[in-house]
Amino acid sequence: MRQFIFLVIVVATVAGVVASMAPASGQSDGQAAPIFVTKIPAGYRDWRVVSVAHEAGELNDIRAVLGNDIAIKAYREGKLPFPEGAIVGRIAWSYVSSEENNKSFGREQSFVAGSPTDAYLQFMVKDSKKYAATGGWGYSSFDKDGKPTDEPAMKKCFLCHQAIKDRDFVFTRYAP
Amino acid sequence: MRQFIFLVIVVATVAGVVASMAPASGQSDGQAAPIFVTKIPAGYRDWRVVSVAHEAGELNDIRAVLGNDIAIKAYREGKLPFPEGAIVGRIAWSYVSSEENNKSFGREQSFVAGSPTDAYLQFMVKDSKKYAATGGWGYSSFDKDGKPTDEPAMKKCFLCHQAIKDRDFVFTRYAP
Repeated sequence: MRQFIFLVIVVATVAGVVASMAPASGQSDGQAAPIFVTKIPAGYRDWRVVSVAHEAGELNDIRAVLGNDIAIKAYREGKLPFPEGAIVGRIAWSYVSSEENNKSFGREQSFVAGSPTDAYLQFMVKDSKKYAATGGWGYSSFDKDGKPTDEPAMKKCFLCHQAIKDRDFVFTRYAP
Repeated sequence: MRQFIFLVIVVATVAGVVASMAPASGQSDGQAAPIFVTKIPAGYRDWRVVSVAHEAGELNDIRAVLGNDIAIKAYREGKLPFPEGAIVGRIAWSYVSSEENNKSFGREQSFVAGSPTDAYLQFMVKDSKKYAATGGWGYSSFDKDGKPTDEPAMKKCFLCHQAIKDRDFVFTRYAP
């Protein structure tokens, strides 16, 4: 029994060392390097506004893009690349016509945020070493219950974002 | 000369008393009661998000609705009426199609915040006594240069907002 416990400890320790080395290695040598984030950053709903947008078509959402303090500071100072620890997030709500507002305006013109969408929350987390394989950003996406999108889908994030390499892979511009 | 200085002090003091009483009187007896705010609240761009919206038609904007700490707390707790000192603000940018985003999406679907609109900033400031004539809220509107909208136009704010009396005259609902 003592031998068994010893073995478990050794295995756990080795696994821990491997796990803690992998993200720091920064090597893009395949499966080992993490490219997405599985935890919702704390306090994101209190972050400041970067900008707002509407995606029509299949997404059919209206969204707020927010930044943590590091990201907002970099945006306002126009600094690129974003510093380590910067996080850009976006919240997407369904895009719905507001009967109440339209009645007051006297015409059909008002579209507001409805319920959370299937891809409710998305974040880009800057860690140049950990996410070296995807431009220094780790990507993440969560539904309204906080469930992360699966890994195969998350692998597609960088395919689009790499088009914006000259702005450090971040689509959204700061709205003054 | 001493008499003149004394007179100036008396006049200034009386004027000060009258000025400080007028807003506090809460009487809606006509011209005296202020109904709008002529100063942009400090730090509004750092406030937290209440929701987002798109107004089509003549306005053709996309907007972020923000709240100061007092307003956000009340929103989150579902407390009505809003407490004294609550301020709800909104920033409106022109609603523009994003070629850059559309190229990445592979279709025309992305609308983003452009330049500030003519009615760039609007605020509702809660002061039940000062703005008793307009439901306890003072209204304000500023263009991109910080110039307040003129008084006749501001008198129209409450005409629409009074339709939402059961939500303390505030149109925008908190987006979770």
